[in-house]
Parts: sequence; structure tokens; C-alpha cells
Amino acid sequence: MTQMELARAGKTTQEMRAVARQEGLAAELIRQLVAKGQVAIIKNRIHKKSGFKICGVGRHLRTKINANIGTSPRQKSASQERKKLAACVKYGADAVMDLSTGGDLRLMRRDILRESTIPLGTVPIYQAVVDTVRHNKSVPMMKAETLFEVIEEQCRDGVDFITVHCGVTRKVIDTLRKHKRVMGMVSRGGTFLAEWVVCNKKENPLYEHYDRLLDIAYKYDVVLSLGDGLRPGCGADATDQSQIAELKILGELARRAWRRNVQVMVEGPGHVPLNQIEKNIILQKKLCAGAPFYVLGPLVTDIAPGYDHISCAIGGALAASYGADFLCYVTPAEHLRLPDITDVKDGIMASRIAAHAADIVKGVSGAAAWDKKMSIARKALDWKTQSSLSLDPEKFTNKKTKMHLRDKFGCTMCGEFCSMKEMDKFL
Amino acid sequence: MTQMELARAGKTTQEMRAVARQEGLAAELIRQLVAKGQVAIIKNRIHKKSGFKICGVGRHLRTKINANIGTSPRQKSASQERKKLAACVKYGADAVMDLSTGGDLRLMRRDILRESTIPLGTVPIYQAVVDTVRHNKSVPMMKAETLFEVIEEQCRDGVDFITVHCGVTRKVIDTLRKHKRVMGMVSRGGTFLAEWVVCNKKENPLYEHYDRLLDIAYKYDVVLSLGDGLRPGCGADATDQSQIAELKILGELARRAWRRNVQVMVEGPGHVPLNQIEKNIILQKKLCAGAPFYVLGPLVTDIAPGYDHISCAIGGALAASYGADFLCYVTPAEHLRLPDITDVKDGIMASRIAAHAADIVKGVSGAAAWDKKMSIARKALDWKTQSSLSLDPEKFTNKKTKMHLRDKFGCTMCGEFCSMKEMDKFL
Repeated sequence: MTQMELARAGKTTQEMRAVARQEGLAAELIRQLVAKGQVAIIKNRIHKKSGFKICGVGRHLRTKINANIGTSPRQKSASQERKKLAACVKYGADAVMDLSTGGDLRLMRRDILRESTIPLGTVPIYQAVVDTVRHNKSVPMMKAETLFEVIEEQCRDGVDFITVHCGVTRKVIDTLRKHKRVMGMVSRGGTFLAEWVVCNKKENPLYEHYDRLLDIAYKYDVVLSLGDGLRPGCGADATDQSQIAELKILGELARRAWRRNVQVMVEGPGHVPLNQIEKNIILQKKLCAGAPFYVLGPLVTDIAPGYDHISCAIGGALAASYGADFLCYVTPAEHLRLPDITDVKDGIMASRIAAHAADIVKGVSGAAAWDKKMSIARKALDWKTQSSLSLDPEKFTNKKTKMHLRDKFGCTMCGEFCSMKEMDKFL
Repeated sequence: MTQMELARAGKTTQEMRAVARQEGLAAELIRQLVAKGQVAIIKNRIHKKSGFKICGVGRHLRTKINANIGTSPRQKSASQERKKLAACVKYGADAVMDLSTGGDLRLMRRDILRESTIPLGTVPIYQAVVDTVRHNKSVPMMKAETLFEVIEEQCRDGVDFITVHCGVTRKVIDTLRKHKRVMGMVSRGGTFLAEWVVCNKKENPLYEHYDRLLDIAYKYDVVLSLGDGLRPGCGADATDQSQIAELKILGELARRAWRRNVQVMVEGPGHVPLNQIEKNIILQKKLCAGAPFYVLGPLVTDIAPGYDHISCAIGGALAASYGADFLCYVTPAEHLRLPDITDVKDGIMASRIAAHAADIVKGVSGAAAWDKKMSIARKALDWKTQSSLSLDPEKFTNKKTKMHLRDKFGCTMCGEFCSMKEMDKFL
């Protein structure tokens, strides 16, 4: 039985209790939310490793963040990706996705599963396409059977959630053709499927055989992350007919999954101007009956390559404050190249700031209290406590050592004219 | 006559035309907005330097950003601050404030005025306090006369806007005492004045002799930036009685300035949780009759020292999208130390992203079009155009060189699996 099935049967599992403890909430509340599909517990049933950090995503919970790692055909180093994984865990990502498309994908995934203490997600179509291409075949020659075999293989390996672009249907692709976009499709997995659908004149196998997908997900209690193949790749394409057409299908598929006791999340945009973010969240929550929303950004401008972690933090904070539950990080390398370890760290920190800023206003347990503690330490010029309360104590200490001029008389910003000191004289 | 006086007399000045050209708007519209006080043109009348980049702040205009530079008692290097000034101009700050409190303040300011091509702001009370302290006197022993002399001196030197904490009145300080805060006062200038007021049991001279201040501002057409001495220094203190009590006074003072044809801006918070930002902007615009709003942040969380440029970009983007006109940058060094040149650059870039993300949704002329051009170049894998359209072409190129693997087949992120390429096969 899946977590959802158990929740609906009134059982409070060990996993639900772990989520409840982590969030400072009642286990019974978690059970109810899992039963309704408003919270997903991201854990493959075979994932029994000790030290595994449970991750619940959804309503009333702390906003979680995901970090993407993985090779590409041009950067195949498995050891580099293992280092990125270590950075993800160290710097506080709640989950990691292996998006590898270069090197030995199976070996890499199994390495990551062995080493990771946080949930792992994948996009199985990548492996199916890579396998196809390595046999000197083009994407449309990929067999639907291959795709399902890869999905089953990955779930059997212990992957906790998978992105499946089930909503890239023939009808949705027609919509995309009718309503021209500046950027077309920017989802890699979505594009593979669209190419397959168009060239083969057949329906998307993940949509057509969705029940088969549900069978596999049910078997391993893997969370289906319903991918947004039609997510806008630039502000100009945001919230258009194609995006919404796909979202409606994802809403139907979420309900179908729940009827089979399969946990789901719904993925969302993308690149979205500031004033369309609220609408996007409301729409998703409504069309998908409150399913956890996993947003890839959103980036609020397209003109800042090298700083897209900031464009993403702005959109992510806003999205989460309106109800998005899970933020996929974007690194400073986005739109430029595969990220390196520094990029991974910067991306995680930016997303954690966004998530936390939202959690303060979402009323997440402990969020505002954390800020208050920091502010009390700041007023007291208690640098040690400030450091330990910092999102990134490593950076705090580094900056401190670099200038070694911070003390009870203030820092180099104001020196003797520190208003924290000045105030004591009269307030 | 000041720009405002001329505007009200129906005259369209050279400065108004320059702002209109820069913004892609009609000169007559600028004249009307200056006449109403909804746009301030930040330029001391004696500031006639060729190459001076005009800066209009307010309604319908591009959101501007300010960068703070200046020494402290512990970091007195004038040459370092000159380098920071060069970075401010190079990386696109619209204005700069010299907040020096260490070394030879007069020399530094005159150096900056000679070298700068963008408007300069100051906080004159810093110099008045530094002068007082250097005569072995405490802050409350500062003479009101000294403060006004310093203000006149700085305006005579050519400073374009000055922050004056006129709203830190006895009544407001009483409010602060009645309604305890976590952080008390964090405005350095505001704290000096509050200390002076409390210890001398006298009214704030900038409030009591506000007309004298208006005389000086009128004489040089210097924009008064009505400082928010009571801005919240942490999220827990945001939008409290003290902050609003001061804001009401600033609203009255803005109207008094306008009656004397003096241009004003109103400064705002500070540290503000995400869900209070809109309210803050609406309140300021209402209480201050649409005066340009100059926000110092706002920072949406307190727990990210080392990354406060990101906390600030989130709040700044949101504030500007709701109508804030001028964003003061925050650097990664905030709450830690005086920024170095890298911090200055990072702070400027983060604020420019915030301002631009807001300009897209404010409908500022050319903003959305810039993003669209970038997206078209991105779709075409035209790296050269992408670089030239980047907010920071230097960073774009740097990242590119570092990986030297970006070409017409995509970048190292996806390599041969680039969805931009893939799409061409079927869309």
C-alpha cells in the first residue's frame, strides 16, 4: 500500500510521523493532507537507507527546494556530479534531481542513490532517449516500451520521484502550433515527447498508457511529478494557451492518480512576469485540486544570464508566498552552461532565501521565529550567534575573517557610529 | 527657479526634455509630473558638468537604482571609494550616495563630484556629527547651526540630493518608546538625531527649522530625500506604529516642500515581510500624495547575511512593481562590513534585476521589448547577441570563456539534446 492509501485507510505511518516531527505539526494533520493529496511524501518504498531525510511537500509544510545535478553529453564526469551531490546535501537542498544525459547513466544514478541522504528525482525519458540515440536511432524511433522499461528500472533502483511529461498530448501540441511562441518549447523532456508524437503521428505514450505508469508508481510508491513540457521559456510566452491547455490535462491526470492512490506533484513555470505569478499559482491550485505545486523558477526577467539565481529567487519567493510548495533551484549558470559546484551552492542559497521569505508569510512553524532570533543577536552585536543563525555560516565566517574588524564596537560599515551602540545611550 | 517652479509655470526645461528623451516619453508629460511632484529631477542647479547623466525618479519612469559608497572610521581609503564610484558608473547605477564617515569627508565629496557622471546624494548629518566628534564632543553637543552650515556647504559643493531625517520628531520618538521594537532604530542618521533630541530635550532642528532647509534646497534645487529614521531593521518591526507615525509626518513635509517649489522624495523601509510590501507602497503613495518613493530594500528576511543583495532584490522587485520608484541597493556585505568593489558590483546587478523585473510589469517603455529580443536570440542560439543584450556582458563572456563549449549546437547544459535545436525538427 502507498502512503496515500494508508492515509486514506486511517493509518499514520512512520513516514507521516517523521514529516510531522520535522515540520512541528500533528501527525494526524499530515495523514489527512496525504489522504487528500495535498501533501506528497517523497520516498520510494524500497528507500530504506538509514539517515534518509524524509521530505514532505505541500500544504502547511515548509517550502522545499530541489537542486538539479547531472552530466551532459559534453560534461560526463561522474566524480564531478558526486561532488555536486555532496554540495546539495551540505548546503541544504531538500531533494536532488539527476538529469544526466552523458556517460554511464545507470552507474551514475546508482552511485547517487547509494550516497544521497535526500530524495532523488529523475526524468526517465532522458535515459530512454540516450539509449535510443546510442543505438544510432533518432528520437522518434524510441520505442514506447523502452520508455516504460526505463521508468520501471529507475523505480526499482529506488528513485523517489520522476518527472513525466504526460500532458504533452497531440491536442496540446496543436495548440502550440496555433498560438505561436517566441521560444516554443524549452522543456527538454517535453520536446523529446513532442518530437516523438509529431513524427510518429501517435499519442504521447505517457498519456495514452497512463494507467501503466500509475501501476509502476503505485508499486514503488514513487511520486509522479507531472512535468510541464509547455512551460514558458520567456516572459513573453507566459500564461499562454499552450501552458494552460497542458495544465488542465495535468489537473485531470492528478485526479486519476489519486483515484489509484498514487501521489503526485504538478510542475509549473518557468519564465513568468511578476504580475502573472499569483494568477499562475491560483490557477494551478484550482485546476489541480490543491496538488503540491513544484515550480521551476519562475524567472521574472530574461535579460540577466549569469544572475538567473536572483531572477529565480524573486519569482520563487513570490510563487511560494502565494502557495507554491516546492521550488526548483536555478543556478547562475542557467542559460549558459552546466553548473559547477560554486553555481550549485549559489543556486541553493538563493532558493533557500526565496523559500524562507515565503515561509515567514505562509506562517510556517519556526520561520518568523528564526528571523527574530537573528535580529536579537544583531541588536546585541553578538556575532557568534549571528553566525550560527546564518543561512550560510561558512560565508558569514569567511567574510568575517577576511575583514577581521567586527567586534562589540560594530563592524567596518559604521565603526564607532554604529546605531546599535548609539541607541543604548538614549533608548 | 527650481525645476518644479518652472514646470508649474508651464516651462519645459532642458532637464525635462533630457528626462523625456531618456525615458521615451513626451516632454510635456514630464513637465506635468514634475509640476505635481510625482517626478523629481535629481540635479543640483550648479551641476552643469558635461556628460552628466540626467536622472528622473517617479511615476511612469524607469525604476532607478542608487548605490551607496563611502568610507567609515575603520576604512578610510579615499582611493578605494573612487574605485567604487567608477564601478557604480560602469555597472549602471543611476545615482550614488557618499555615506563617508571616515577620513577627509570634504575632499572625498569634492573628488566624487568632480569624477561622477551620475547624481550624488549625501546624508549631511554624518559630516556634522563627524565634525562634532572630532572636536571631542558627543553627538548631543552638535550645534543645530553646524548641521545647517554643513547642509548649505554640501549643496554649494554641488550635491544633487540629500537625506534629511526631518521626521524623527519628539512625538515619533515617544511612539518608539511606547511601542517596543526588536531592533529599535537602525538608521544611522536617524539615531544621531534621536539621541540629540532626547538628550537635549529639544525638537529635531530639521523639523523645527524645516523652512530654513527648504530655503537651501530651493536655492540649489537640491532634492530633499525625506529620510526614514524609523525604518524597521528587521521583519518583526515592520509597518509598526513608529514607522507609520514618521511616514505621516513625511507626507506633511512633502506637501510643505511642494508649496515652496522644492522637489522631494520619501524614503521607505527597510526590512519588510513579503506580504506587507504592497501595503507599505500603497500607504506611502497615499500619505505622501504620490511623491517618489525611495526604498532601502526592502529585505524580506533577516537570516541571510552574505546574501542580502538577494533578500533585497526580492523585496525591491515587489516594491517597485507596486509603485516604488527608486531602489537603494544592498550588497552582499550588508550587516557584515563595508562593501568592497565586488560587493558593489553584485549589489548593483541584483538591484538592476529587481528594477527591471518591475519595469516589465509597470509597462515602462522598452522593458518587455528588451526581454523579447533576448529570448529571440536565445532561441536562435545566437550567443553574440545574447551577450550584448545581457545585463552584464562581462559576466556572460567570462562564463563563456571559462567553459568555451557554447556554440551553434547549444551549450554544455544539454549539448546535442538542446531543445532549441530539437524543436526545429518538428515545430
